[in-house]
Amino acid sequence: MFRTVERTEAGVRLLDQRKLPAEAVYVTCASADEVAEAIRLMIVRGAPAIGVTAAFGVALAASQASGLPPSALDAAIVRARDALAAARPTAVNLFWALTRMEGAARNARAEGAGNTELALLLEREAQAIHDEDLAACRAIGRHAAPLVPAKATVLTHCNAGGLATAGYVTALGVIRGAVDAGKAIRVFAGETRPFLQGARLTAWELMDDGIETVLIADGAAGSLMHGGKVDLVVVGADRIAANGDVANKIGTYSLAVLAKENGIPFYVAAPTSTIDRKAATGADIPIEERDPAEVTELRGLRIAPEGVSALNPAFDVTPARYVAAIVTERGIARAPYAASLAALVPPS
Amino acid sequence: MFRTVERTEAGVRLLDQRKLPAEAVYVTCASADEVAEAIRLMIVRGAPAIGVTAAFGVALAASQASGLPPSALDAAIVRARDALAAARPTAVNLFWALTRMEGAARNARAEGAGNTELALLLEREAQAIHDEDLAACRAIGRHAAPLVPAKATVLTHCNAGGLATAGYVTALGVIRGAVDAGKAIRVFAGETRPFLQGARLTAWELMDDGIETVLIADGAAGSLMHGGKVDLVVVGADRIAANGDVANKIGTYSLAVLAKENGIPFYVAAPTSTIDRKAATGADIPIEERDPAEVTELRGLRIAPEGVSALNPAFDVTPARYVAAIVTERGIARAPYAASLAALVPPS
Repeated sequence: MFRTVERTEAGVRLLDQRKLPAEAVYVTCASADEVAEAIRLMIVRGAPAIGVTAAFGVALAASQASGLPPSALDAAIVRARDALAAARPTAVNLFWALTRMEGAARNARAEGAGNTELALLLEREAQAIHDEDLAACRAIGRHAAPLVPAKATVLTHCNAGGLATAGYVTALGVIRGAVDAGKAIRVFAGETRPFLQGARLTAWELMDDGIETVLIADGAAGSLMHGGKVDLVVVGADRIAANGDVANKIGTYSLAVLAKENGIPFYVAAPTSTIDRKAATGADIPIEERDPAEVTELRGLRIAPEGVSALNPAFDVTPARYVAAIVTERGIARAPYAASLAALVPPS
Repeated sequence: MFRTVERTEAGVRLLDQRKLPAEAVYVTCASADEVAEAIRLMIVRGAPAIGVTAAFGVALAASQASGLPPSALDAAIVRARDALAAARPTAVNLFWALTRMEGAARNARAEGAGNTELALLLEREAQAIHDEDLAACRAIGRHAAPLVPAKATVLTHCNAGGLATAGYVTALGVIRGAVDAGKAIRVFAGETRPFLQGARLTAWELMDDGIETVLIADGAAGSLMHGGKVDLVVVGADRIAANGDVANKIGTYSLAVLAKENGIPFYVAAPTSTIDRKAATGADIPIEERDPAEVTELRGLRIAPEGVSALNPAFDVTPARYVAAIVTERGIARAPYAASLAALVPPS
């Protein structure tokens, strides 16, 4: 069994997801800056997983600075937070985890904690974020059970599986939960250009679990839906606005529109840490633009003419009206989402 | 300027489109069987281009057999036709061109043509199909002029350009015609997985023409439309049913649905040889399933786990209700298509 992210003595150890499925290689980040760079480079990716990873990064920085004067330790935490927050802009779980780590540090200092105690507490907080993520993913699988028929073909996009989380699953949790419940499930995995998370990661995880998986080009999803070959669509999320608009991997919006047009339910599975109550609608969610070379090249192989322009938005926003339900660890939200999401995540 | 297909002394010379844009390599097919294999391998692709190529293949077979007894020449033509017809199932232009070549041979024999005369006549007929295709493509560009605003961003898919035809354009003809008319045109080219005709061919052709081109992953098209960044969608076609349903490269149906949902006109540009009056609806159009390795590998580079299943339908069918207009060399057809297409291509 792979470990997406874990805290080791040497630092934060990550499964290098860029190299999957060809090789399962682990890299260890020895500083918070290295953790931030790993998030930027997508060595680790997936909204919940980068939240957990960032939390470990803060803990690492605190532990490494615990021999310094208290003000230097506090400054190291702020520097780590800033570096990690700048790594990727769209997934809100990253900011959620950083805010939680910062709050824990502030409370500890307010209660008179010394450096050693603070560092230990941050390590525990990061591990708690990790463990809660795992528990949340399992709960998502349970809550989703009534949504999946006894025999179903599920279309998914990108990777909202164990690799995107502390080690279990969000969108794939819905699938895995259904399989565990004895349902006959087949999965169409969209390859998810440009980064190929579907081809490389989802296919690898599902095959590892013995779940029937059929890989497709992203462009094939629509005609499969139109041909009656898809019973439901399940995706993860990188950020969910207060009104239920969902930011997720580029291509998700297209699937949602195609599902609606063909009368197929479109579900989003994500922990409540993905819900950003400060974003009123999807228009408030920043969309990361990544290097055009991810489109024009594939692992160094040039697939487009030299000098061509390319646009590489990493995410898109699916308006809430296309979303049949949002499955979280606290239960299922349905339209109207302003009310149902507020019930799951009360205003703080 | 490239030459997609031409008849040379040595056989039928094709630009090897699999190697673009890295290299512009020509291959010569020395027999009709080699021509059929080149079509199957997608050395040449694009509905009009494979029609022209198949016609040259028949002419080649006839010329090579012209020293044999008349019955042997006639048998060689039948063999060539069968081999070429089996190369790819979806594009009707292939069958249209073969039927036309066969009809020319039959008529010539009925009028008492000897072998030399018949072979010469078939060479001329193939060349006429080539030249008419070129003229048709230019006419499509002219007819489409009123559809393109003075300043527009056009989304296209796959390659319906000079490489897909005898050397000019169908969908790209709409774009080229607009640019030639002094309009300010920008093109979003969908990369078109799995074969990457958009990234490799369309981008290359448009850049060669100095037309502003931005390459995108197929999954990005929807959110660009939703964001108001696309004024019209133009694609080619591999076969158009009598009711206006359009078979075209996989992913086309998705674009059509997304265009409708966002109030963007979706146009199809194709010569009338693409209209198959024998197919009442899209359900009568056979859809080619290609090697799953096109999805799981990219030029020999493995991008998915060993042993994963993949589905690789080469085409999909877009129902006529999503199509704002079909632009042919004889004029523009609009809904109801049963009537408008019948007016352009009277029942024979």
